[in-house]
Amino acid sequence: MPQYDNTIEGETRRVHIREVGPRDGFQNEPETIPTSDKIRLINALGRAGLKRIEVASFVRPDVLPQLADGVEVLRGIDLPDDVARQVLIPNSRGLDNALRQREYFDEATLFVSASQTHNRKNINRTVEETMGEVRRMGKRVVDEGLRFCAVVATSFGCPYEGRVPPERVLDLAEQFAEAGAMEIGFGDTTGMCNPAYASRFFAAAIERLPGIEVTAHFHNTRGQGLANAYAAFEAGCHSFESSFGELGGCPVPKGSTGNIATEDLASMFHEMGVDTGLDLGRVIEAALDAQATLGRKLSSHSIVAGPVAWSPRDRGRSLPC
Amino acid sequence: MPQYDNTIEGETRRVHIREVGPRDGFQNEPETIPTSDKIRLINALGRAGLKRIEVASFVRPDVLPQLADGVEVLRGIDLPDDVARQVLIPNSRGLDNALRQREYFDEATLFVSASQTHNRKNINRTVEETMGEVRRMGKRVVDEGLRFCAVVATSFGCPYEGRVPPERVLDLAEQFAEAGAMEIGFGDTTGMCNPAYASRFFAAAIERLPGIEVTAHFHNTRGQGLANAYAAFEAGCHSFESSFGELGGCPVPKGSTGNIATEDLASMFHEMGVDTGLDLGRVIEAALDAQATLGRKLSSHSIVAGPVAWSPRDRGRSLPC
Repeated sequence: MPQYDNTIEGETRRVHIREVGPRDGFQNEPETIPTSDKIRLINALGRAGLKRIEVASFVRPDVLPQLADGVEVLRGIDLPDDVARQVLIPNSRGLDNALRQREYFDEATLFVSASQTHNRKNINRTVEETMGEVRRMGKRVVDEGLRFCAVVATSFGCPYEGRVPPERVLDLAEQFAEAGAMEIGFGDTTGMCNPAYASRFFAAAIERLPGIEVTAHFHNTRGQGLANAYAAFEAGCHSFESSFGELGGCPVPKGSTGNIATEDLASMFHEMGVDTGLDLGRVIEAALDAQATLGRKLSSHSIVAGPVAWSPRDRGRSLPC
Repeated sequence: MPQYDNTIEGETRRVHIREVGPRDGFQNEPETIPTSDKIRLINALGRAGLKRIEVASFVRPDVLPQLADGVEVLRGIDLPDDVARQVLIPNSRGLDNALRQREYFDEATLFVSASQTHNRKNINRTVEETMGEVRRMGKRVVDEGLRFCAVVATSFGCPYEGRVPPERVLDLAEQFAEAGAMEIGFGDTTGMCNPAYASRFFAAAIERLPGIEVTAHFHNTRGQGLANAYAAFEAGCHSFESSFGELGGCPVPKGSTGNIATEDLASMFHEMGVDTGLDLGRVIEAALDAQATLGRKLSSHSIVAGPVAWSPRDRGRSLPC
């Protein structure tokens, strides 16, 4: 059984951050990023202290050509031994393909949308069909010795259905836990959460999911991303997902920004005296590399303003501020 | 004596927002905005439900040509009777000039920087010299029947001096209170605050300043503006300053964004169930008008994404989302 204790005393001034840019970010770029650039950027993130990186997706390449080189990326990256390489698995066929590369990754993410309409539009199935397949896939993931991570998308609202009842979201989370998930992330897919709701929701989720690592994935669609992260942290959540350079996320409504920037999230936590384990200067350098590679201005604040306070490991580093 | 009670029960689900864009925003534009555009935008803000608007500054026109038309603006705007028109007063000569237009405004703001270096660079005086003049000016402001508002700039850090001791900031606030200030704002001039600090600081400020309205003025320099606002609100602060379109604020470090956007702040509060009195759709329309007038893309999130939830007064309004 999973054993994560969200309430460990010593953990309260430390958070875990998973970097999702190489999957969630790269897949949203209109132009496919060359494999060699992806590998260089992922390696830089590993050197910046990120211990959890989502590096690939086993979605069909004709559906998501931006990530069609997933196997080459998995085989090409060179990360420290203590960095967990995570892959996203949409279905059983994706899991078959992923397991052929078993030695190249450590964590598998299975997902569902809390909103029936969003789930249908995203993966063309009902929520119930997806959860049936999750139970079968979850067993295989656990049997392979992989860490089984789950994500409930549209946990805080759906652009088609509006508000999503928290009971439905927590019920799906419990189904994931019964299927063997060790970590459950709640995704604010189109940035509809607010900090008061985040506070109540994460307190309830942690209570309802004993032994499970509860992870928050917020978007900055309406500028509230860090406010939500702060509120979730104060409610006891110590695991977060974010994307360097503020890459990716669901651009709904059209033109809006998505994920919160890893460097902005880490900067906030560092300034609060909360350790992330990250070398913030190096995360910013990786985001600046992404900006140069993509050739467009990214929305991250820290790549312009830099952090306020340098942690000891940041001192002496030359930065653009 | 001032009588504001920050802890009034009925007040806790309602906040006051002062719009500072027409002063703080317009003065930071490289090109001076035509007077007729300023008047149109301010009138639109008044129609959007903003009850406190900073409309002009009595700084010398050769120092700040962008606001040289302050008197024309004051005389040209047409705001509802219940909207307080605020002007910024840098010194006694500015106060002399302002009082010649006494009938055209309701509130006067006097200010100092908590950081000695920033105060010298900003207004070429020591903090002590400024506070001496504040005492003299404050009496005149109160005698004129104006609402005396005070601002302590660089309350959460200074780009020259770094961290500013909270004791120094609160001591200056008490000096303002003794001089007759009815409201004291704490400015995060270069976006160095974080939500944990905001929470502790505003709880302390409210306790130290009985009868004074305590106002938070945050910047989004490092993306934490709304997180700080949420933390201050939770600590008991119910008065905020912001700028439509995310205009203005101190662009330090170079290129960084400044004030939090009024529409993003209001959107967050509305989604939390906290009333602002604003018609969010109209604030967004005013920000879009500013964007079109200035001819450049503004950083506000809500002008792209729109709000999540429409308050009753927003229903049926057509918006760009």
